[in-house]
Formats: sequence, C-alpha cells, structure tokens
Amino acid sequence: MAGKAPIIVLVRPQLGENIGKAARAMLNFGLTEMRLVAPRDGWPNPSAGPAASGADSVLNDAKVYETTAEAVADCANVYATTVRKRGVTKPVVTPEQAADLIASRDGRSAILFGPERSGLETEDVALAREILTVPINPDFGSLNLAQAVILCAYEWSKKADGTLVQPTAEDALPPAPQEELEGLIAHFEQLLQPRGYFQPPDRVAATRLTLRNILTRPGWNHLEVRTLRGVLSSLGKPPRDT
Amino acid sequence: MAGKAPIIVLVRPQLGENIGKAARAMLNFGLTEMRLVAPRDGWPNPSAGPAASGADSVLNDAKVYETTAEAVADCANVYATTVRKRGVTKPVVTPEQAADLIASRDGRSAILFGPERSGLETEDVALAREILTVPINPDFGSLNLAQAVILCAYEWSKKADGTLVQPTAEDALPPAPQEELEGLIAHFEQLLQPRGYFQPPDRVAATRLTLRNILTRPGWNHLEVRTLRGVLSSLGKPPRDT
Repeated sequence: MAGKAPIIVLVRPQLGENIGKAARAMLNFGLTEMRLVAPRDGWPNPSAGPAASGADSVLNDAKVYETTAEAVADCANVYATTVRKRGVTKPVVTPEQAADLIASRDGRSAILFGPERSGLETEDVALAREILTVPINPDFGSLNLAQAVILCAYEWSKKADGTLVQPTAEDALPPAPQEELEGLIAHFEQLLQPRGYFQPPDRVAATRLTLRNILTRPGWNHLEVRTLRGVLSSLGKPPRDT
Repeated sequence: MAGKAPIIVLVRPQLGENIGKAARAMLNFGLTEMRLVAPRDGWPNPSAGPAASGADSVLNDAKVYETTAEAVADCANVYATTVRKRGVTKPVVTPEQAADLIASRDGRSAILFGPERSGLETEDVALAREILTVPINPDFGSLNLAQAVILCAYEWSKKADGTLVQPTAEDALPPAPQEELEGLIAHFEQLLQPRGYFQPPDRVAATRLTLRNILTRPGWNHLEVRTLRGVLSSLGKPPRDT
C-alpha cells in the first residue's frame, strides 16, 4: 500500500510558508512525495522550512517541474482539487472516494492543488481523470491550501493499512468477569439493606433490578470494581467525629 | 441532525490567531458553537478576527468559561482530544468513530481541545467519556490546533450530510448532563471524606481522579443518577439496630 501513496503536486504555489505547511500536513499522514510546478518565488524557498515544523525531509525531496504535464508524466491517475466546480464535465469525487480509487487503481497517483488565490487552471484540470472536491459548508467555503492537503492526506491514511498508528485502548483493561460484578452488587445490597433502602417490601425486587441495571451498564474492569469495593467499605464505616 | 452538532471547546488556548483559525476550520464544515475556557490573553482577542477569514460569527457567539467543568456542564457526551495516550484508561476513538457516537447518542456533545503547547490536563480529560485521537504518522505527529479541529469538524460533516437522523430507542433516556454527574461525584466525596477514604494526603488528588474516571464512564441518565443519589443518601445513614 505504501507504494500507492499519492504524490502531492502543488501547482504554481505562491507563498513558501504554504508549501511548508503543506509538507507538514502531508507527513502527519505519512505522505512524503511532493512535487512543485513553477513555484512563484523559486525553489528552495527560505520561508518553507520554518512552516514545515520538522517535515524538512518532504521539502528536501521535493521535485520541481516547469509544467503540470511534466509533473504528472509518470502518473497513471491524476486528481484535480477544486473548491467549486465550474462547468466541469469530469466525475467529481470526495477525498474519501479519491482514497478508495487511489488504493484500488494500478499505477502512481497524483493529486493536484492549485495556487492559493486562484486555484487550478482549466488546462491543469484537463490532465485529471477526476475532480476532487471537499464537501464544504455552502455558505462558507474557506479552505486554505494546507487544509485541503491535510484532508486528502488524512483520508488516504485511513485507507492505507497498517502504516499509521490506530488509536486502540491497549492500556484499557477488559470488563471485569461477572462474578466480580456480583460481588459489587452484593456489597451494595449488604450495606443498603440495614439502612432501610429496600422499602416498601413490594418494591424490593424492582429496586434491586434498577440498581443492578445501573451497575451492569458501565462494564467496569477489575481495578475499577476493586476501587468501588474500597469505596463501599469506607461507606460502611460510621463517619469520624470531626 | 443539526441540533446534534458538537460544541468545540478550546481549553486555555494561547494565541488569538489559533482561536480564529479554529473558528474558520469549524465553519468550513458547518460547526458554529465555540466555547473558550480561560483563554490566556483574555477575550475578545484582536488577533482572532483576521485569522478567522470571515468566520466572525463563530467568534462573536463564542462563550467564555473559567473552568472546563463549567464549559461542559450542559453536555451529556464529552470527548477529550489527545495526541498521544499517556496511561489512559478511557476508550479511545478516531474522529470518524467520534462522529458516529455524536450522531447516535442523545444529548449535547462537546469536543475538548487543549492548549497549543501542552494539550489537555489530566483533570480536563477526566471529564470525558472517551478520548479522541487522530491516527497519525508515528514518526511525525505534528497536528496544530486548527488542524485537529478541522479533522473532527470534517468527520462530523461527513456524518451529518445526507445521513438521516438515527432512530433512537424511545425508552432510552439521554445521558445526564455533566452538572448532574458533578453532583453525584460531590456526593460520593462528601460521604467518603469524613470516613477517611481520601488517605494518605499525597494520594488524594489521584484517588479523586480515579473515582471520577469510574463514575464518568457509564453515561448514566438522569433517573440513574437520581437513583444513585438515593443510594448514597441511604449509605450516609447509620445502619439500624436489627
């Protein structure tokens, strides 16, 4: 899957700072291959490094091309990002759908991002098989370059298997076995009984059930049940004279 | 579904610029409700507006609180974002899973984001039912505040768009708001304190936190919390002579 990771192509980017931010966005989600088409202020650009916040490797490995066509010459699948579709006749996909396509298609993939102010030109879009559009608030579409890049990189990383750390609650313990829970419930009842909680007699069964439902719900683990047993032991004592 | 949109809570944010960027990220994906907990440089902050790039309505409507607990007092479902897990015992979910949970659970939801430099404190995380972690490049985790916000907002918008309102079990009550949970926790502490539970003194904070984590987990509803308050009232009485 790693060999399928898309290339991020910044077409005529204006500010070095934004190139650095795009590199940072990429590397957060495991994308490392950046290509630059005719960056306005040349390359390398001293503003890019500080904005990359440590993603220097992406900048150092970035390749520069004069035209978009040259930048994607070796790519089989090109996606052109646009904020708004304007008389577009190509299929339009979301970042999620693009990630699916990138994963399922053979050959290298490239995602084109246009200049900050104007976006991609018609000739750039013409190189693409699909238009990639982020579904956005129709009343407030204001994604900057790095944000558009990060959403595409994020969707790709969700698709790419095993390359990224999935947050699992590996420190989380399994729920305590039922017998520990029974012990907790019995402890509650043992304290509540002499204090007159289970009254009137005809409500005892229902009250017991309510309490059991409440205590069964959380799926507390062994340590949590043990802590609660300690709490109950304390509650069983009379308060100290203070 | 619109009524279920999560509230974005920035806890002790440092730079006004980042508050503005977070507002912009939110509005791009239709989130409008921002809460600020003790912003470092006060509020309003003149640096926020320009960075919001037009999302002024979000900033103008932002509410300010002194503590995180106050900011989420009316929320039934609280998610705490962390970049790295540190001995966390709560369930860990991705932005996508969090969006699913927010859509399916009753009651208001809030997502907590910590200060730029340090992230959320343990006490903030303790208020949450789940930890929200963006799966990220293990060798380069460098998400800034606005990027973390935009990924959560984006996943929410994917869920909210074109998804019909999930039917929920009619008889299932929503989780109790945070302030009822605080009342329950305070009741526990009030009973435990005079019985010498919080000993030794140097363990008090940790013990409090453990108890809070256990009681925060279940998402008990109003009736369940009321039942438990009744249980505690009984436990506060001395046993009868039988």
